[in-house]
Amino acid sequence: MATVGSGDPLVFVHGWPEFWLTWMPIVNKLKDDFTCIMPCLYGFGLSDKPDALRDDLNAAFHANDIMQLVQKTCEKPPVLIGHDIGSYVLQCCATMKFRSGGQLNPAGLIFFNCPTPSVGNEWIAQGHVNEIWYQSFHLTQLAVDLVGHSRETTETYLEHFLRHWSFCEEAYKPFLPKLVEIFSSKNAIYGGFSWYKSNNNARLETIAGEKEPYNPKIKILSAVLWGKHDPILRSNWASYLHDNFENIIIEFAEESGHFVHFEQPDLAAGFVRRILNKWGRDFG
Amino acid sequence: MATVGSGDPLVFVHGWPEFWLTWMPIVNKLKDDFTCIMPCLYGFGLSDKPDALRDDLNAAFHANDIMQLVQKTCEKPPVLIGHDIGSYVLQCCATMKFRSGGQLNPAGLIFFNCPTPSVGNEWIAQGHVNEIWYQSFHLTQLAVDLVGHSRETTETYLEHFLRHWSFCEEAYKPFLPKLVEIFSSKNAIYGGFSWYKSNNNARLETIAGEKEPYNPKIKILSAVLWGKHDPILRSNWASYLHDNFENIIIEFAEESGHFVHFEQPDLAAGFVRRILNKWGRDFG
Repeated sequence: MATVGSGDPLVFVHGWPEFWLTWMPIVNKLKDDFTCIMPCLYGFGLSDKPDALRDDLNAAFHANDIMQLVQKTCEKPPVLIGHDIGSYVLQCCATMKFRSGGQLNPAGLIFFNCPTPSVGNEWIAQGHVNEIWYQSFHLTQLAVDLVGHSRETTETYLEHFLRHWSFCEEAYKPFLPKLVEIFSSKNAIYGGFSWYKSNNNARLETIAGEKEPYNPKIKILSAVLWGKHDPILRSNWASYLHDNFENIIIEFAEESGHFVHFEQPDLAAGFVRRILNKWGRDFG
Repeated sequence: MATVGSGDPLVFVHGWPEFWLTWMPIVNKLKDDFTCIMPCLYGFGLSDKPDALRDDLNAAFHANDIMQLVQKTCEKPPVLIGHDIGSYVLQCCATMKFRSGGQLNPAGLIFFNCPTPSVGNEWIAQGHVNEIWYQSFHLTQLAVDLVGHSRETTETYLEHFLRHWSFCEEAYKPFLPKLVEIFSSKNAIYGGFSWYKSNNNARLETIAGEKEPYNPKIKILSAVLWGKHDPILRSNWASYLHDNFENIIIEFAEESGHFVHFEQPDLAAGFVRRILNKWGRDFG
C-alpha cells in the first residue's frame, strides 16, 4: 500500500496487471487536496501472495479487505475509486450489508470503466470471444508456467496487454520495468491469476446471461469515466450501468483505452475533482 | 510426408499439434494391407512454413493440397482419414466440386472426432468457453513470441495440450521430443498457428450459430470413431453429424480423449478395417 497527500480520503483500487504504482499519474494531480490511499490487493504488488492458484480470492474477499482498510485508515467516509478488478471490488463493497455503528460507508464510487453483471453475453458476441481468452488461460497452471518461465516471458506477456488495451500506446512504458519486477517476484503470477480462478463462476454466469442487475440498484452516488477505445471493457457497455446504479454519471474519455487513469491523467483527475464538487453541492 | 506399406490407398490428414509421425501407432497396424500416405499440412512437420501468421491457410487451402496429392499419388480412389484440423479439411474435400475427368474422388471418409458447422454455440456453452481460449490466443503475435520463446516454453505448451486432451495420459509421451523438435524449427509456430487465423471467420460464424449444416449433405460414405472423453471436441457433438452427412456410421472410443489414433491404436485400426470391409460389401 502507498498513501500520498492530505485532505479528504480517496481510496484507489487497482486492476490486473497493476498495483499501487500505476495510480500515481492521477494521484500526482490530486494529492495536494486529498489523502490518496492506494492498497495493493492481496496477491498483488507489495501485498502477500498465495502459493498456488486460489479460487477464493473473489470480489467479496477483496471488498472485505478494502472495507477493513477504510475502517482503519479513514476518519470520514471515503470516495472509492476503482478500475478493472477494482471496479468489481467496488461494486461488491457497494452491495455489502454495512453494519450499523462504527462502519464508514463509502461516500461515493468513481470508476474508470465499469463492467456490470448485465453485460451478459456481450462478452462473447461479435468476435469479442477473441478478446477474453486470457480470462480462461489464467485458470491454468500452464499460464503460470509459461508467463512465469522467465523475466523475459513475464515482460512479453504484460507488455502485450498494456499495449493492446491502451489507446495512448506509450503511457504504460514508464511503469513496465517496475511491473515486470513486481510480477517476477515469488508467487506474484499466482497472485494475479487467482482473481480469474476466483471470479470464474460469476463470469460464466454473466456470459450465460444468468446474472440479473443488482436488485436493489446501487444507491451510493457513482460516476464513470470510460475510455472510449477500451478493447476489453467496451465503452458501449456503459448502456448497462443505469440498470445497476440508481444514480450514476457517465462520461467518456475520447483519447483513452483501458487505462484512463494513466493514459489521460489530467482528464481523469479533472473528472474526479468535478464529480466531487458536484457531489459536495448535492450533499450540501 | 511419409508413405508406408502397400495396398489400397489411405490418406491420413493430421491435426494440431501434430504431423505425420503421430499417425504411426495406427499405421503400424494397417501398413501390411494398405498404402498409408501421411502428408504434413503446409506449415506443419516436414512441409514448408510461412514466415508470418497467415490468414489464407484455411480448410479450402489444405483441401486443395490434399486433392492434388491424391491425383499424384493414388491409382484408385483413396479413403481419407482425418483428425482435428484434418477433419475440417476432409469435410472441405467432400464438399468441393470435383472436376470430371482425371479427378479421383474420395471413396470414403473416416474421422477420429469430427466437429461440424452445426455445433454452433456449443463451443461456448456451459463453460466450454474456458476450453477454447487457445483458438483465440493463436491469433496473436504474443502466442508466437511466448510459445516460441525457447525450446522449453514450446515443450511446456505442447505437453499441456497433449496431456489435457488425452484420456490415456501416457500415450503422447513417445512423440513429445520429436514434436518439440519439429515445432521448435524455424517458423513452425507460425505454421501451426496460421490455421487458427485462417479459420477464424468460419469459427466465429459457427459460434454465433450463423453456419447452416451442409446443403446438400455430404454423400461420400463416412464414419466417425469419437473419443468419449475428448475435452475439446466433445463426443456429444456427434449428435450433429446426421445433419451434415447423408451416410455416416458413428461409434465411440470409450477409453480415448482427443487422440483416438494414438491413445487406442488397436481399436482405431480395427475400426478402419471393419468400416472398409463394410463399405467393400456396400460397394460390391
